[in-house]
Amino acid sequence: MTSVPRSVGTMISDAAAELYVNDPSARWLGIELVAADLDGATVRMTISSEMCNGFDIVHGGMVFLLADSAMAFASNSQTDPAVATTAEIDWLAPARAGQVLVARATSRWRSKRAALWDIEITADDQPVALFRGRTRTIPGG
Amino acid sequence: MTSVPRSVGTMISDAAAELYVNDPSARWLGIELVAADLDGATVRMTISSEMCNGFDIVHGGMVFLLADSAMAFASNSQTDPAVATTAEIDWLAPARAGQVLVARATSRWRSKRAALWDIEITADDQPVALFRGRTRTIPGG
Amino acid sequence: MTSVPRSVGTMISDAAAELYVNDPSARWLGIELVAADLDGATVRMTISSEMCNGFDIVHGGMVFLLADSAMAFASNSQTDPAVATTAEIDWLAPARAGQVLVARATSRWRSKRAALWDIEITADDQPVALFRGRTRTIPGG
Amino acid sequence: MTSVPRSVGTMISDAAAELYVNDPSARWLGIELVAADLDGATVRMTISSEMCNGFDIVHGGMVFLLADSAMAFASNSQTDPAVATTAEIDWLAPARAGQVLVARATSRWRSKRAALWDIEITADDQPVALFRGRTRTIPGG
Repeated sequence: MTSVPRSVGTMISDAAAELYVNDPSARWLGIELVAADLDGATVRMTISSEMCNGFDIVHGGMVFLLADSAMAFASNSQTDPAVATTAEIDWLAPARAGQVLVARATSRWRSKRAALWDIEITADDQPVALFRGRTRTIPGG
Repeated sequence: MTSVPRSVGTMISDAAAELYVNDPSARWLGIELVAADLDGATVRMTISSEMCNGFDIVHGGMVFLLADSAMAFASNSQTDPAVATTAEIDWLAPARAGQVLVARATSRWRSKRAALWDIEITADDQPVALFRGRTRTIPGG
Repeated sequence: MTSVPRSVGTMISDAAAELYVNDPSARWLGIELVAADLDGATVRMTISSEMCNGFDIVHGGMVFLLADSAMAFASNSQTDPAVATTAEIDWLAPARAGQVLVARATSRWRSKRAALWDIEITADDQPVALFRGRTRTIPGG
Repeated sequence: MTSVPRSVGTMISDAAAELYVNDPSARWLGIELVAADLDGATVRMTISSEMCNGFDIVHGGMVFLLADSAMAFASNSQTDPAVATTAEIDWLAPARAGQVLVARATSRWRSKRAALWDIEITADDQPVALFRGRTRTIPGG
């Protein structure tokens, strides 16, 4: 299944859409790409019971992964590929199986090759985590 | 399957072992717990093709998740539960499907309730990422 | 000289004002407290030639220090003292002697004892750095 | 006074020594450069009463600044200049006026242009803070 989900429309850059349809992890985890351009991106994912840890809450690494995906689709909304270099996360509240995590990336700063992104992760409109990450564009990469 | 893998022996604290056998994400992702006590922990995971992104390399979030798991098993090597509060990662080099990621957590500092952990992630003994995270113990939590 | 500068008015919490007048580093560095409450704070400082490094630009640590001061005055706008636990900074552009650095802290999240702050540092309304930090309140501390 | 202190000997790279003698902030703050090459650097500074905040402990920003200086001297131990891009700090324990802060930077990783440094800050051999920072070399910069 390589077609882009129906909710993905004109707000998704061609470059991000192409990256998404070639992304096995997005399909495996059920990550939906809602929007993506150089200003930001939104992705969402339903928490499965398998994504939970021994405390019966979603693994903190899955929350991070979703935010990182949002940053990847936003930063790759251009011809030259962008790679993530470093990121940090603050976990604010737990989320549980069945809830839908939403990660919204916003561009905070950009130079010729470097960019800084803030990502908010929510579940049922409640804050779950804050993520800040950096990407670098590789010319002709 | 709730039994602890054979390689898990006397170097794993009882509390970490119990957390591990009740962790659906560890089984789902094939995370093996190699060692865990309050001084550190080691986990490993084989990169599947589903864990890779549109660039055909392992999703940076999966690398983070494995390091986060190592921190979780080390910090929970005691009766009171510990939660991760914040962490950051530097991605140094890509890894690919079929490679085995190893995350080694080391305790760097500890107060009554707070702890700081450094985690190195490697594949075939080559550095893949560096992770620094913080946990807090919840008394009677 | 322990009096609060004239520009410091009703927008400064009593607790922050008291901390400020007892702060030798603020006087030494010429840090002016413009506003402070639990929602945020603003401080400013003129870059002296002594604050510059061997590249003839302001020392990155001085930029960090000003942001950290903004967080300190905001987080201490209450009876119980708050301490900074961890913070990170992204330097975006250099600033030079004679320019006025302004650091604006904004509360991003708060629990019973923990708080997360975003601080923007500018010079002549141009971005110089972004800072994210965390504080903890010490009950009766 | 532009001469290098006597304790600064053959363990200091020529490039770092040149940066140091042209650094007004190092003289102003009494920062002593003990050692510097591409593997790391050591600097120290006596905490003055002016470096302390309203809690009568050293300003967290001064601790950060010293660590940042260590990173600067290590990363500039070569012909091409290096700039700091991002860093984070964990404050572990307070230090007071009269104590000598020592910051030791160690190279953790290096690519063609990027480098990652871990810095430990101590006072009287007790841990005060941990700092992790990143620099980029600017070819012909």
